[in-house]
Amino acid sequence: MKEVTLKQIAENLGISITTVSKALKNYSDVSKKTKALVKEEAKKLHYKPNVFAVNLRTKESKTVGLIVPEIVHHFFSSVINGIVEEAERKGYLVIILQSNESYKLERKQVDLLISKRVDGIMISLANDTVDTSHLLEAMEHDIPLVMFDKISKLVKCSKIIINDRQAAYNATKHLIDSGCKNIAHFRGALLPQNSIDRFLGYKKALEDHGLKYDSSLVYMCERVDYEDGRRAAEQLIKDAKKVDGIFAITDMAAVGAMTVFKEHGIKVPEDISVMGFSNWFLSQAITPALSTINQPGYEMGRGTFKLLRKEMKAKKAGIPFEPQTKVLETFVVKRESTK
Amino acid sequence: MKEVTLKQIAENLGISITTVSKALKNYSDVSKKTKALVKEEAKKLHYKPNVFAVNLRTKESKTVGLIVPEIVHHFFSSVINGIVEEAERKGYLVIILQSNESYKLERKQVDLLISKRVDGIMISLANDTVDTSHLLEAMEHDIPLVMFDKISKLVKCSKIIINDRQAAYNATKHLIDSGCKNIAHFRGALLPQNSIDRFLGYKKALEDHGLKYDSSLVYMCERVDYEDGRRAAEQLIKDAKKVDGIFAITDMAAVGAMTVFKEHGIKVPEDISVMGFSNWFLSQAITPALSTINQPGYEMGRGTFKLLRKEMKAKKAGIPFEPQTKVLETFVVKRESTK
Repeated sequence: MKEVTLKQIAENLGISITTVSKALKNYSDVSKKTKALVKEEAKKLHYKPNVFAVNLRTKESKTVGLIVPEIVHHFFSSVINGIVEEAERKGYLVIILQSNESYKLERKQVDLLISKRVDGIMISLANDTVDTSHLLEAMEHDIPLVMFDKISKLVKCSKIIINDRQAAYNATKHLIDSGCKNIAHFRGALLPQNSIDRFLGYKKALEDHGLKYDSSLVYMCERVDYEDGRRAAEQLIKDAKKVDGIFAITDMAAVGAMTVFKEHGIKVPEDISVMGFSNWFLSQAITPALSTINQPGYEMGRGTFKLLRKEMKAKKAGIPFEPQTKVLETFVVKRESTK
Repeated sequence: MKEVTLKQIAENLGISITTVSKALKNYSDVSKKTKALVKEEAKKLHYKPNVFAVNLRTKESKTVGLIVPEIVHHFFSSVINGIVEEAERKGYLVIILQSNESYKLERKQVDLLISKRVDGIMISLANDTVDTSHLLEAMEHDIPLVMFDKISKLVKCSKIIINDRQAAYNATKHLIDSGCKNIAHFRGALLPQNSIDRFLGYKKALEDHGLKYDSSLVYMCERVDYEDGRRAAEQLIKDAKKVDGIFAITDMAAVGAMTVFKEHGIKVPEDISVMGFSNWFLSQAITPALSTINQPGYEMGRGTFKLLRKEMKAKKAGIPFEPQTKVLETFVVKRESTK
């Protein structure tokens, strides 16, 4: 169907575009009769006002964009929930895009959001994003930008994160305090900052407590999911390593590992302690209930939108905005999978 | 930043807009020198071609819209994954919106997608959507539309569903076949078709097998989630009903119930059998592993995009398109939570 414009309605009725526009908006200086005529013609032609077009007065579209590496990922799900709830409360619609951990796709999606004239962009980076020119471009277009969780230190925008290194240190220390001497780490991909930081926190905790770091006890979980956890645990069993504790980069990887141990008759925590990361809502429902690090996804989501809104408001008011970095608290949650 | 146009570049260089456009597209009838000049000026001005604007020749934007009631919901997560993967394979970007089970929001989101000129819309309805005029409006705008899972029979568009009544019948029959005589049902909200159908399937299976239907054994799980399952199970225990089996509307509600039983020392399946619905990937990782109905979310997602693409292709070719309804197969998955 061809897009119907105000002009067409005006031409059909032989009146001015301004009158048509005013009639549709119920202005008082247009007669009831004209209003009725205009509305009837608009209905007949299936005229659709572009309600989400950029408001020329306020220059706002009241839509914001959100790019996440993975939607199904339980941590990002919580973040999305927090963002959407906070945005709805303030009357914003959220356009969500999934980069699928691909830099190429992420770049295209930032372009899409710029071209769709969103009021702001929130993003957690794909694993292979090194170049950040697409984000600088959004900022050059004067679009407020907030990064969360997987960030780049090179981009001068607002950020909301946790202290991954400290949290991983505490997770590993919890295993050490409970008596573990040979602790393996199921780590994430090589590039993302949070994966690097969690690895470094693990290593530092070993060294600070007189345990030798052994690189052969570090297993790769590229997608940090259930299947990856299963694979790493199977490899660990095959390697016949003397291991009495595991610090897994995510709860999902930890749950995958525990399933494999169960299948092999290896008892958790008697034979091996398992520590997760993120405190997924079901980590307490599995048997044994998973010890983990509480990573506040929902709060991160709400905080992300709040930071974005601060900047959008400053922009609207013409006030310079200084990017802020917010670090959320984490803590150890002791359950049954550790001694 | 002000939007830079081709016109501005042309004016700055004192050449025609057509030449600027051709130069940026590397047309052979523009000299190398002019191309270099134009590109330099474009870069200087931060000119951004609107790559996602509707292509005037093909009339395509290569973006499609997806509205789901809830993103975090594990079944919808699988559907989203299927849609996004299939769409990416065909070069489409997917704009995802979460209606949060609200008709009001869903309506706004359909308007947004129409105004953003998407090539097609995929939707699973909110629980309280009764009026479907917003969907008819999308169709009047000649935008291909596919409904999945939570559909309305009133809208004449393509649909992809399962036979919820039959699947629920089979789930209940599985409980009956394993010896259950007093079977409770944790049902979903009153309105959505799939919630009604699953309830009717449960009721029919009881009646067909000589078991009396007892409305006091039907518990409401409004949001069909883990917390709802917990609440319903707690109420069941409080009511001191003689129940030896439960058919829960979702795996999440079933897992919630099992957690409560565990806390109360009620053994599954010895004291009570539990049957879920949807075969969430972790239903095999919990203890006892959950018996359930396999509901193919990922396949539904892929099928949804494929149906949409069929219609988009027909539209592009100017061929009339007859809406199709696809019913996907389900089956009982027997694990440890039933006898």
